[in-house]
Amino acid sequence: MTAADRLVKTLTKRNVYLDNTPLEETVEKYFGRLRELNAILPLEGEIIPVDDALGRVTAEPVFARISSPHYHASAMDGIAVNAGDTFKASETTPVILNVGVNAFIVDTGDPLPEGCNAVIMIEQVHFISDKEAEIISAAAPWQHIRPMGEDIVATEMIVPANHLLRPVDIGGILAGGLTEILVRKRPVVAILPTGTELVQPGSELKSGDIIEYNSRVIGGLVKQWGADPIRYDITVDSYPLLKEKIYRAVQESDVVVVNAGSSAGSEDFTSSIIRELGEVVIHGVAIKPGKPVILGVVQDKPVIGIPGYPVSAVLNSELFVKPVIESMAGASPTKGATMKALLSRKLISPQGVDEFVRVKLGRVGDKTIATPISRGAGVLTSMIRADGILKAPTLREGFEAGEEIEVELLRDKREIYNTTVIIGSHDVSLDILANFLRQNFPGRSLSSAHVGSLGGLLALRRREAHLAGIHLLDEETGEYNVSYLKKLLPGIPVVLVNLLYRQQGFIVPKGNPRSIRSFTDLAGPDVKFVNRQKGAGTRLLLDYHLRREGIEPNHVEGYDREEYTHMAVAAAVAGGSADVGLGILAAANALNLDFIPVTEERYDLAIPEEYWDTSYISTLLEVMNDSHFKRSVESLGGYSLRSTGEVVYRTGTLEN
Amino acid sequence: MTAADRLVKTLTKRNVYLDNTPLEETVEKYFGRLRELNAILPLEGEIIPVDDALGRVTAEPVFARISSPHYHASAMDGIAVNAGDTFKASETTPVILNVGVNAFIVDTGDPLPEGCNAVIMIEQVHFISDKEAEIISAAAPWQHIRPMGEDIVATEMIVPANHLLRPVDIGGILAGGLTEILVRKRPVVAILPTGTELVQPGSELKSGDIIEYNSRVIGGLVKQWGADPIRYDITVDSYPLLKEKIYRAVQESDVVVVNAGSSAGSEDFTSSIIRELGEVVIHGVAIKPGKPVILGVVQDKPVIGIPGYPVSAVLNSELFVKPVIESMAGASPTKGATMKALLSRKLISPQGVDEFVRVKLGRVGDKTIATPISRGAGVLTSMIRADGILKAPTLREGFEAGEEIEVELLRDKREIYNTTVIIGSHDVSLDILANFLRQNFPGRSLSSAHVGSLGGLLALRRREAHLAGIHLLDEETGEYNVSYLKKLLPGIPVVLVNLLYRQQGFIVPKGNPRSIRSFTDLAGPDVKFVNRQKGAGTRLLLDYHLRREGIEPNHVEGYDREEYTHMAVAAAVAGGSADVGLGILAAANALNLDFIPVTEERYDLAIPEEYWDTSYISTLLEVMNDSHFKRSVESLGGYSLRSTGEVVYRTGTLEN
Repeated sequence: MTAADRLVKTLTKRNVYLDNTPLEETVEKYFGRLRELNAILPLEGEIIPVDDALGRVTAEPVFARISSPHYHASAMDGIAVNAGDTFKASETTPVILNVGVNAFIVDTGDPLPEGCNAVIMIEQVHFISDKEAEIISAAAPWQHIRPMGEDIVATEMIVPANHLLRPVDIGGILAGGLTEILVRKRPVVAILPTGTELVQPGSELKSGDIIEYNSRVIGGLVKQWGADPIRYDITVDSYPLLKEKIYRAVQESDVVVVNAGSSAGSEDFTSSIIRELGEVVIHGVAIKPGKPVILGVVQDKPVIGIPGYPVSAVLNSELFVKPVIESMAGASPTKGATMKALLSRKLISPQGVDEFVRVKLGRVGDKTIATPISRGAGVLTSMIRADGILKAPTLREGFEAGEEIEVELLRDKREIYNTTVIIGSHDVSLDILANFLRQNFPGRSLSSAHVGSLGGLLALRRREAHLAGIHLLDEETGEYNVSYLKKLLPGIPVVLVNLLYRQQGFIVPKGNPRSIRSFTDLAGPDVKFVNRQKGAGTRLLLDYHLRREGIEPNHVEGYDREEYTHMAVAAAVAGGSADVGLGILAAANALNLDFIPVTEERYDLAIPEEYWDTSYISTLLEVMNDSHFKRSVESLGGYSLRSTGEVVYRTGTLEN
Repeated sequence: MTAADRLVKTLTKRNVYLDNTPLEETVEKYFGRLRELNAILPLEGEIIPVDDALGRVTAEPVFARISSPHYHASAMDGIAVNAGDTFKASETTPVILNVGVNAFIVDTGDPLPEGCNAVIMIEQVHFISDKEAEIISAAAPWQHIRPMGEDIVATEMIVPANHLLRPVDIGGILAGGLTEILVRKRPVVAILPTGTELVQPGSELKSGDIIEYNSRVIGGLVKQWGADPIRYDITVDSYPLLKEKIYRAVQESDVVVVNAGSSAGSEDFTSSIIRELGEVVIHGVAIKPGKPVILGVVQDKPVIGIPGYPVSAVLNSELFVKPVIESMAGASPTKGATMKALLSRKLISPQGVDEFVRVKLGRVGDKTIATPISRGAGVLTSMIRADGILKAPTLREGFEAGEEIEVELLRDKREIYNTTVIIGSHDVSLDILANFLRQNFPGRSLSSAHVGSLGGLLALRRREAHLAGIHLLDEETGEYNVSYLKKLLPGIPVVLVNLLYRQQGFIVPKGNPRSIRSFTDLAGPDVKFVNRQKGAGTRLLLDYHLRREGIEPNHVEGYDREEYTHMAVAAAVAGGSADVGLGILAAANALNLDFIPVTEERYDLAIPEEYWDTSYISTLLEVMNDSHFKRSVESLGGYSLRSTGEVVYRTGTLEN
């Protein structure tokens, strides 16, 4: 397609109108319309063997056909007797019963012999011979007997309709004498990936190609919600092809999800097609991310167009596809567990929009701390790393730092409680540390947030982390880290433990085309630099050297372009948007770039003494001393683990 | 087997020694031993397609092969430009760019054309012609661009080892360029049902037969915990057969569960066999229910013998099989959600034993109330009906009424919050009401506890229920219910709503062999009666008539035998342990018994005014007015729903 063609198309399509309907109103309007059309009624039933019914939903109440037990059963190992024969028994006047005549050996579960109405525990019977049993206390009628129907009485309801069947329910239904059961059909959800730019996973990638993984993510969610996903082939951007595909999907399924093509871009046909085939109830909801969702109906079946950004796709599915499935499946709507937490920093969120913010959670001291992470709708890893979702409601402009908020959990509460929280400078070795921690101590994990060394120390001060990773050069002493602890954490006793030494240097494209050798070269003409964010140790290192060389930062092109990790710096160089960045060898190696060493720096872990004796820290120290861990980091190159795990400094302790 | 044989066997086996090891010590000792033997190491990996990896656990960390995006991508629909060309643009000095020369139409996700470093949103572009685009503000470098690696940088860790894969992880791994993944093998758990008394579901039942459903329950649990269950055929009680089966199961699986044969009964071989094939670490744990569990190892594989009572089987599986599976699966141990609640009544639990008590939960007013239900190990329905499990720890003798306790949840918190709690007299129509409520209002449910009419009113006084079902005859006035409200709920305004009228009468075996016609007949020779518990309206009715006839209760054989429901009374008659009981026609019909009518009584719902306007009550009243509900109850026989839903009385209201 030529630029002119695209322009024409763009101009033509600009009239696609996007609503901005508030979320609450959207839910009311869309689900109201679906109910009106009987489009989300519970699906009809199908009869299946009870043995296959785990996780299915009953379509009618299940009534017991037989009682359980279906006879009077002994509840103990012992002898069955008629209580009348035992009334006179006492320590002084034992009663002797005749085995096989008026005393019958029974095991737990055995039927009560004719004429018996009590069981005496074997431990309380003295067998004089194999024919005679002596007892020294009377049996009460009906003692140690499970009367018929104790568990289930025939005709009693075992589970109601619309009940999600758990293992114990399966047991109860079988005990009630049933072997088949009427359950709701599972909703079939058609998932249509659309877009000429999409390619299947494993394809050779050209610039502009996007790996089609959303349909797998949505498919997985749909499965977890109790429906059967059908993933369709990728449909290229063609109005007639997509129309034909949607029409077919409506015939073949109960719900249709189209992804993407839901915004107002130049190749977004979905809303026009749904309107042509049926009805668009709402196009555009006041949520962030995920605004351009299309909520439609075709032939009384829900058809939902979901934007292509992966975080939007997940959130929209949760908001609109899940309740549709739950309604059709007949089960109760479920909601994830929530947890109260304190927000670690101010969160600004636009009014008039329901924003869904991913947060990391950690238990530090006696508080649970929530830290917002990336808000980009395209950053799927923010969903992978998130521990929970915070909803910033439409009527608020966000939350204050330290405010108590409620978070919908994406991870088990226990896992969150067993997570060591490290905030500070980024280093690749932290990923490896996290992995070994999880491997050596199942159930434990490391959560790291990258805000630079200074940011890490400030987080310790606010008690938002168990430790901080820092590499802060003191310009005056040439020493690392210690002076910053004194300055930034006065009165807080801290143990400083070495993690490793690492080389810092210039990350440049293969062959070093701009011939970068020194800091002076960064100010050269046509050299585009990529910097780290304020507070990063690497940035302090740069500033230190620029000052020493007498170079003004504004003479370095790109000084203001900030990235948050070494990897992001390397990626900028690899992608060609920068010619050079300052960072570590591991990052350069990872992306097959060249590396000009500048200095070796010390990277330490600052650990407040109050957490020193907790398992948050002890497990971590144990992993740091594991030779597998050390070898694994050293193999990346540019690292020395000669002092790993050593205490390099302690500020004033709690005792003095 | 003759009685003598059984006796000999019983006497021989009595030397089976059962420990009473505290739970904590058991866990330490058994899992310590398993670790020592490397018997529960995470299983080795297998390579599978990422598309099939949902719910599996990673066996190694997953590192990205490619970045995502793998090129600099437009984050908006708009035009891509070089920011340098736009610096001078302002409202007064617009800049005109040439489409295809220094301005390029891009959609979201398109790669950034060569030479461009910014994107301007389409909404901020004025197209003068199809060749010329006018802009009125400067673009900042890198604005509206998703730089290469924004989401994932090649070589970055996407998920660590031992990570349970969720839909978003699948997306991230595909986005990172992988199509195959090394995941842990799923543990294979062999489940061996044993016992001559066991029969498969659907078999014709003889007295003493027990339907084999435990293996299905355990199998379902095992599946939910991430393992693959193999259910073996039933093994009859034969030492060599069982030994051969266990030996084979050890070869074919990673974990073996034998059920039952774990106690010291006369046919319980399991512990001897495990000892012969390997080692019994512990046999007998100080827990209730589930004490006689066998924890063993054969050929470095866990072999666990679980008692046959279904509640014991479930609890033992949770305590011992689940952690074994989780360790082998490599995933973090999970724990169910918990909830604080107030205990509705005193709970006595023996010291020296960890008891697991099933409770119902309900949200009444601003409190969550936990009410213990049946403690019988054989009552599987107590697990089905329970909302949670309360652990009464070994060092305590129980809990006081009103004490705050922590409950491990078996149902979704939201479901519990949407549950109407009715406590009081039992009536079959409550099951039907519960079912219609769930059907007409998905997400809502009715929880009913049967403690008799008086018990129901006392529960209202303690604010433990939203309403009570009562049928209390006032001896003096001959009127139902009203006087009891005044007496028992002084100062609490209550609305009395009629549920139905019902016939009460004598439930007798088919043909009425004892010729029961009147209350006088209950005192006849050889007539065994079965009574209801104290506080039951039916019992008051009996007492009223006995007094009128001048019959002493102790002249009625079985007056002291108490059952808690009409169905249980009917079951006692059907099972032959009683000749007659007082109850409702529906119960008699259900078990194909005869029924001699005595009187019609009014069954009302007492609803404190404070809950009158809540959805707990309004949904219930709506269902009561549903003609389907009415017809469904009437079809049981013995009911009249002529006044259902009518307010029959209001005690002093809040206003006056």
